Amino acid sequence: MKKVGIHAASFYLPSIYVDIKDLAFKRDIEYDKLSKGLGLNKMSFPDCDEDSASFAANALIKLIESNNLDPKEIGRIYLGTESALDSSKPTISYALEIVEEILEKSHGKNCFKNVDIVDLTFACVGGVDALQNCLDWVKGGQKRKAIVIASDLAKYELGSTGEYTQGSGAVAFLISENPDLIEISDIWGIATKGVGDFFKPRRSYNKIELFKEVVSLLDKEIDDELVLEILDKTDSKFWSDNNKKVEVFKEEPIFEGKFSNECYLERMEDALNHFNSQKETDFINSWQHLIFHLPYAFHGRRMIFKKWLSWITEKGDLKRLYDEVGNDNDKSLFMKKASKSNLYLDYVKEKIMPGEIASSEIGNMYSASIFMSFLSLLNHAYNNNIELKDNTVGFISYGSGSKSKVFEGIIQGGWRKKVKGLKLFEILKRRKKIDIEIYEKLHSNQISIPLSPNKGIIKLSKIESSEFNLGLRKYKYFKD
Amino acid sequence: MKKVGIHAASFYLPSIYVDIKDLAFKRDIEYDKLSKGLGLNKMSFPDCDEDSASFAANALIKLIESNNLDPKEIGRIYLGTESALDSSKPTISYALEIVEEILEKSHGKNCFKNVDIVDLTFACVGGVDALQNCLDWVKGGQKRKAIVIASDLAKYELGSTGEYTQGSGAVAFLISENPDLIEISDIWGIATKGVGDFFKPRRSYNKIELFKEVVSLLDKEIDDELVLEILDKTDSKFWSDNNKKVEVFKEEPIFEGKFSNECYLERMEDALNHFNSQKETDFINSWQHLIFHLPYAFHGRRMIFKKWLSWITEKGDLKRLYDEVGNDNDKSLFMKKASKSNLYLDYVKEKIMPGEIASSEIGNMYSASIFMSFLSLLNHAYNNNIELKDNTVGFISYGSGSKSKVFEGIIQGGWRKKVKGLKLFEILKRRKKIDIEIYEKLHSNQISIPLSPNKGIIKLSKIESSEFNLGLRKYKYFKD
Repeated sequence: MKKVGIHAASFYLPSIYVDIKDLAFKRDIEYDKLSKGLGLNKMSFPDCDEDSASFAANALIKLIESNNLDPKEIGRIYLGTESALDSSKPTISYALEIVEEILEKSHGKNCFKNVDIVDLTFACVGGVDALQNCLDWVKGGQKRKAIVIASDLAKYELGSTGEYTQGSGAVAFLISENPDLIEISDIWGIATKGVGDFFKPRRSYNKIELFKEVVSLLDKEIDDELVLEILDKTDSKFWSDNNKKVEVFKEEPIFEGKFSNECYLERMEDALNHFNSQKETDFINSWQHLIFHLPYAFHGRRMIFKKWLSWITEKGDLKRLYDEVGNDNDKSLFMKKASKSNLYLDYVKEKIMPGEIASSEIGNMYSASIFMSFLSLLNHAYNNNIELKDNTVGFISYGSGSKSKVFEGIIQGGWRKKVKGLKLFEILKRRKKIDIEIYEKLHSNQISIPLSPNKGIIKLSKIESSEFNLGLRKYKYFKD
Repeated sequence: MKKVGIHAASFYLPSIYVDIKDLAFKRDIEYDKLSKGLGLNKMSFPDCDEDSASFAANALIKLIESNNLDPKEIGRIYLGTESALDSSKPTISYALEIVEEILEKSHGKNCFKNVDIVDLTFACVGGVDALQNCLDWVKGGQKRKAIVIASDLAKYELGSTGEYTQGSGAVAFLISENPDLIEISDIWGIATKGVGDFFKPRRSYNKIELFKEVVSLLDKEIDDELVLEILDKTDSKFWSDNNKKVEVFKEEPIFEGKFSNECYLERMEDALNHFNSQKETDFINSWQHLIFHLPYAFHGRRMIFKKWLSWITEKGDLKRLYDEVGNDNDKSLFMKKASKSNLYLDYVKEKIMPGEIASSEIGNMYSASIFMSFLSLLNHAYNNNIELKDNTVGFISYGSGSKSKVFEGIIQGGWRKKVKGLKLFEILKRRKKIDIEIYEKLHSNQISIPLSPNKGIIKLSKIESSEFNLGLRKYKYFKD
């Protein structure tokens, strides 16, 4: 049986961040609630000339260069994102264009001529969908190579309950036969339900009403007919548009946190059961590491707790738990105590915590979160001289809307050589903090001069404005 | 070697259409230019309560019911679309929710519990990407079943050069082992280049400028500071938004027709060469049928002409062509004559025309166009008692942005029984014509009462407006 999996990895993170302490202070939120409660330290925020395509392009060029890949050997580059920049043109096509341009000198013109690219969209699970399809494709041929990228920015309204869970960046994986990093098995636990726990809808407005709102803000009145008459004569692109309805795009989602957690939990349960129906698995015991989709750092340990408690009750050392926290008749009190028990925290520390570290420093990367969590585990083990070879890693992904996918892999012997150059935690330390006032201006698009140095980086350079290319995005590579 | 391909098909088309003759008259365009030049007769236009999710849902339920499928046996439902309704929640999740609800009575609750769904986005080629990945997935397991849907609406500005190439609808395919309709080989010719020939960008506006435009339309003046002061006090959702930038979504694309044709041609050439490098193929001679992505009915025959001319010159009956149109020294004149020669028209009639018929009656279905063209071939052959068994069909797809994918398949013995119930041309005849004035109102969102009867159909019933579900779409099944 052919072994396929992740052979190499790269990532890109904006070089500026917001300190959660500053945000907590400004929003009058108890810092400990965010820091100790959710595991949040910093959040990665994109500069004014960065977007999901520039993130993806930076991760892609880094993967190619640091692994000396021949672009002509890459058969596929699939992107998972819920921060697409266009409704028709895939975001990956923007990333490809600039990366192909950079590679022209070393690999000739059109080095990506026959590569298959596409965007996959399913909230935070689209990257995992891209991964699964690329693994299948590599398995289906001889010596195939594919690249999977997950790139996103998680942006929430200023002052909202989601604000402190923002984050951004991209992760890229090279998929191949006989991988150095991790072999991924072809058992996939899947659970799906069409719900609206978190989404990014268009906001509809009636144009005449918008016009009348301005008039009324000026303490005047106007009737619809006169508005139509005025609109008929203007050449303003916005106001003269034929469409009565104005549909506004916003990066910020509509969501219900509590409901979304319930959906995550239910889909996860169903996906674990689906996985178990294909391969009987003692998830708590036989998985050495658990890697989750993390909307915030401590989300995974919260989600898996009930599963752990059932396991302790049925197969583990329940007596030890009782000894530690007592056998309370009040079930909810018992559960609360159990979730803070050393027994559970030891489990978390051993199997979950290494995957949380990067999330605490970055925030929610949406589709890239689960990939980054895996890089966190690898870099933590590398830096601490922990051997991961032959360890089994369980992956639990979730995308609102909603779907969970569960899969597992076995770390391969070559993992150290592929993690060595990543320097995730070192790079995280090199970022620049921006203060809250700057952050708020950046958030509301009031900053147009980049805050971070343009060195050795791909960034958005221009958005076209002429008739036939209105809105077309142009990217540029700024050399070292 | 396992045989995989399309086992069954279904489609959904809006029941209202615009007559191209009416449009040509209203826009003062010579009708023959559209009818004889581009092959346009009618264009399918969505009712006010239809969208890409309702199209997909209707095609999906029809595929399941007409083939007595057990939803629990379906492992995947992948959607190709460039008319997504949300930037995070996949459009297929909306379709799944309502179809699962309808199936509850016959198949119990959550009959799609473990199905894998996702949206793939790459302009008009996303459906083909979905198809390829589902074929690979079916091939990779035992007795797997997948459904591929392509659903889109092609909408262009009123009065624009794209207006007469509008269209809409969805096609669904059931993918399985030992298919009844067509076996698809696993050779894929692929060509990619990041360009901006056609895309659907967000239109950015400065909110203060928008406000000032209204003031100036009222023949007054106001400075930025006062605007900011006013906006600070309002509770208007639109005007009080923190973001300085307003990003407007529009269904209508930005495009350059001539450039996009060149991209189609170049990508097609490269993809054919890529296919040929894997399996030497005489595309003109050995393919019995050619199925294209058709932005308008006669696009395929225009695109393949040069290839045909090369073939005639190198391998065909060049003397017969010279006899018919003369051997003109003026190359462009010769080509023009050759493209109208009986020799070429005979080739078109035999190998391309059957796939054009539906397009003439529907218009551009974006990602679903190439799938519908295949249904056109099948239904035409069925109605005319033409045997297709063992015929080789070449597929040439294209998605702006840009990518072409070329693949081929062999029609299977069971094709007649699976085409019998489709009744494509009969259903096309049953549609209702709407006049231009109504169409223009529908186009600019000024109609809110459905024009078509709500019988035996899934339609959008509501768009939610409360804080936690703002913009969430609800669908309803209207019984017969």
